Amino acid sequence: MTPGGTVAVLGLGLIGGSLARDLAARGTRVVGHDPDPSALRAALDEGVLSAAVSADGEGIEGADAVVLAVPVSDAPALLERLLPRLAAVPLVTDAGSTKRRVVAAAEALGIGPRFVGAHPLAGDHRSGWAASREGLFSGARVWLCPTSSTTPGALAAADALWSSVGGATEAIGAEEHDRRLAWISHLPQLVSTSLGAALASARVSPHHLGRGGRDVTRLAGSSPPMWAGIALENADLLVPAVAQVEAALRALREAMERGDREALLDLLAAARTWADAPPSDGPA
Amino acid sequence: MTPGGTVAVLGLGLIGGSLARDLAARGTRVVGHDPDPSALRAALDEGVLSAAVSADGEGIEGADAVVLAVPVSDAPALLERLLPRLAAVPLVTDAGSTKRRVVAAAEALGIGPRFVGAHPLAGDHRSGWAASREGLFSGARVWLCPTSSTTPGALAAADALWSSVGGATEAIGAEEHDRRLAWISHLPQLVSTSLGAALASARVSPHHLGRGGRDVTRLAGSSPPMWAGIALENADLLVPAVAQVEAALRALREAMERGDREALLDLLAAARTWADAPPSDGPA
Repeated sequence: MTPGGTVAVLGLGLIGGSLARDLAARGTRVVGHDPDPSALRAALDEGVLSAAVSADGEGIEGADAVVLAVPVSDAPALLERLLPRLAAVPLVTDAGSTKRRVVAAAEALGIGPRFVGAHPLAGDHRSGWAASREGLFSGARVWLCPTSSTTPGALAAADALWSSVGGATEAIGAEEHDRRLAWISHLPQLVSTSLGAALASARVSPHHLGRGGRDVTRLAGSSPPMWAGIALENADLLVPAVAQVEAALRALREAMERGDREALLDLLAAARTWADAPPSDGPA
Repeated sequence: MTPGGTVAVLGLGLIGGSLARDLAARGTRVVGHDPDPSALRAALDEGVLSAAVSADGEGIEGADAVVLAVPVSDAPALLERLLPRLAAVPLVTDAGSTKRRVVAAAEALGIGPRFVGAHPLAGDHRSGWAASREGLFSGARVWLCPTSSTTPGALAAADALWSSVGGATEAIGAEEHDRRLAWISHLPQLVSTSLGAALASARVSPHHLGRGGRDVTRLAGSSPPMWAGIALENADLLVPAVAQVEAALRALREAMERGDREALLDLLAAARTWADAPPSDGPA
């Protein structure tokens, strides 16, 4: 991806908007679309976008790369809608938090050779164009998930695109990606959501939490549509992970109910030993 | 509490050590004890302690205040052991995270008039003398829990002591304190512990988490003995709170299992609405 090329970014939220900002800042011509007219207008007014793309993708035909930065549940249908205009586009990629379905959709639509699923681990609980900013991907892990037919040239182009905005890329299969992310990202989100929901039901204000409680509940403010989509996409891998946390909470609760200090110590020590593990310990 | 007085601090961990540092820095004579000889030696060598107190409290007799900064499960027995030496001490206070039992113990031992339970909400996942530091209590909420017989003078002295190190004091009944803390502090701790334990069981390294996952699991590194004690002390109030989080996780899991996007959106939105609540919304 040369700085002089054109990239189309579809979806100008936290991830898409930040990517567009970084690309524009280094001299790439960026075109794009967002279903929110005010976000699209702002991206044009701020000079991040050189031109708008229509909801159906009119304007992406000559791009060097097309990036889908929409909720994961919307990506396969968008890909299908864009298909007629992708014939001459050498790289199609995305930025969603789950990868199996979008990779399978690209293969089914016959664009497997030019598709590389991508997932930058750079979001936080904020969302939307207003939260987007330059430098979001600096130093962030970016997983690249090729299809079964991705060409070396397409993979190299995806690597160049995400590296150019500071991402630390790592190629990984879509299945392995989704399994790993279920534990390291999706599960912490649902745990934080559950604590927030419990505190809401007890009418406890978030403003009365201490620093520790604020940390544990920070993700509870994340975007519901985005996370409903991720949870459904990755349900088969997430369900057993959630069940594991339920089991740990139940074990703590039952130890309290029977006044079992040793059991509490064991459970707390297992978590602390995990937290204190040295960097080289264990697989991801 | 005049800067020229003497305060005895029993337990030189994160809380007791930091309190000793702040008091010594403003000119109070601090004496104290820690069961760890190296912590006690360090506190003397660094000039924080003017003298050591024995494990049975020899050396506290002339103090203007005695502060128990030990695990909550140890405080009642320590109070009883110190009793013969407390006859002339005008203020006895503590720093534990639960308050019902220590307040009841002080009443039962006949020192209710001179006892004020205290709880600075200033800890984090670190512990021990090595983690102690000046300024820890600056701006921190400090709950003061009088007994049924605490004198106005003792309450004023406790308020002066904790205010002098920067605490924002607030008087509250011990029962109400423990109910509130079960939700805003103890529950987030056990949720973070449970996520850490689940990730440990799945052999997921903490070093592969993103920023969000690190936030949610930060408290998993907290001291097991300290939290086993708190969980047992406050079990009757904590058990229903933990059950509420289990119910929220189960609801999310079952919604994933049946592919119910609306239910997921409702649960995620309840947590987000809670997280976005304005500062004035709802009781603590």
